[in-house]
Amino acid sequence: MLRTWARLSWGLPYFVTPRSGVLHQRFSHKLQGNSAAWILVSQKSIDRAVPNPSWSQEMMLQFNRYMEMTKDGSWQKLPSYQSFSDHLPDGPAKEEFQKQKHRLFLRSIEEEGKGFEYAMFVRPSEKRVVGIFQLGPYLEGPSGFAHGGAIATILDSTVGASVILVSRRIMTANLNINYKSPVELGSVVLVDSKVDKIEGRKIVASGDVRSVDGQTLHAEATSLFIELQPPSSPQKEGDSSSSP
Amino acid sequence: MLRTWARLSWGLPYFVTPRSGVLHQRFSHKLQGNSAAWILVSQKSIDRAVPNPSWSQEMMLQFNRYMEMTKDGSWQKLPSYQSFSDHLPDGPAKEEFQKQKHRLFLRSIEEEGKGFEYAMFVRPSEKRVVGIFQLGPYLEGPSGFAHGGAIATILDSTVGASVILVSRRIMTANLNINYKSPVELGSVVLVDSKVDKIEGRKIVASGDVRSVDGQTLHAEATSLFIELQPPSSPQKEGDSSSSP
Repeated sequence: MLRTWARLSWGLPYFVTPRSGVLHQRFSHKLQGNSAAWILVSQKSIDRAVPNPSWSQEMMLQFNRYMEMTKDGSWQKLPSYQSFSDHLPDGPAKEEFQKQKHRLFLRSIEEEGKGFEYAMFVRPSEKRVVGIFQLGPYLEGPSGFAHGGAIATILDSTVGASVILVSRRIMTANLNINYKSPVELGSVVLVDSKVDKIEGRKIVASGDVRSVDGQTLHAEATSLFIELQPPSSPQKEGDSSSSP
Repeated sequence: MLRTWARLSWGLPYFVTPRSGVLHQRFSHKLQGNSAAWILVSQKSIDRAVPNPSWSQEMMLQFNRYMEMTKDGSWQKLPSYQSFSDHLPDGPAKEEFQKQKHRLFLRSIEEEGKGFEYAMFVRPSEKRVVGIFQLGPYLEGPSGFAHGGAIATILDSTVGASVILVSRRIMTANLNINYKSPVELGSVVLVDSKVDKIEGRKIVASGDVRSVDGQTLHAEATSLFIELQPPSSPQKEGDSSSSP
């Protein structure tokens, strides 16, 4: 089952052009072309959503708490890779992607513990995803606190992951964040997200960032996603020409 | 004059707790305590808002275009440092900050060209800031495109920079982004931001992300900032105890 969630862990199809048929069609093709690749997991890839020495005691506690909840199958842990190419089977397409040397934004900082340390867990029955995030010292905005863009990033990623539970062909159209209380660097927070409403091709989802005891609301967001139309001429799986 | 804009280039005081008097008071103190440090520039610090070999021809063109506009004084270039400690004068406070080894989020990726390459220019007469951003291969969301969180980060930073033109004691309360069209990794975009309205302690500002020819609107945002109350007991400049 974890194979089907692999795409969730590395990034999401953002951006939509609801008023632009041309662009919509263009990116719909490209995303659709990649969708098969997104759910492939290479046995050779390193899952980074596992404990490393930089994880704090609190991070370990939360991780173990959710791992415990996976035992009855109601929750599932998502693997997380550093790059898109990790998701591809061996072959020319993978080699082409590897040459680009892209790195997924949430895994962009190589040094353990300096950037985003995280693991995501999904509860499909509730269309819900929870991300456990430890925010490292390279995510600074105001002195000692996480940058607003870093908070936007963990919200966007986790909320988007919950939306992928209902459709993989999505793009973010709107992200609206209320910042309530700053997050100190080094602390661990929980991002809890779920799908709220589906109306045709529009999917409304929300999420919040809280302290691990749930007492402090750091930020909350609502987001609108648009489900892309199926392409009129589907491309072959793993065909690198389908990727931007 | 550039000295007064130094704070703009490395991060902003995000997050606000408009409904929490306790937290508001708490962080108001801390930010106020740092505000003097934010405008200090060390001659020893490396300004990273200058060309490096990773900058594309387009990035150079835009940078030179704005540099040309600084000649009559209507625009000014902002310097940009990697860490908060770069802004402090030599002494115990600087040493204390250096020990934390924090890094500003926009400068978190060490390798030139892999993350955010950027320079910001201010036009005080219009309460306006323009950021020229080259988005590197480590900012990936969907394959080949920048992550929605990376777009949120450049918007939040540039819009916040324009707000600092009217008040340095600010925190972001809301950030509302409409994503219109994806940004390909490696491309250069312009983030144009300005203060729209000031109502008491509320400051409304906005910004958009466009292609360099202005023809493609990638994203647009509005943001609400709250001006913090002056602290009741100001702390000494450079006093590390004033920082979180």
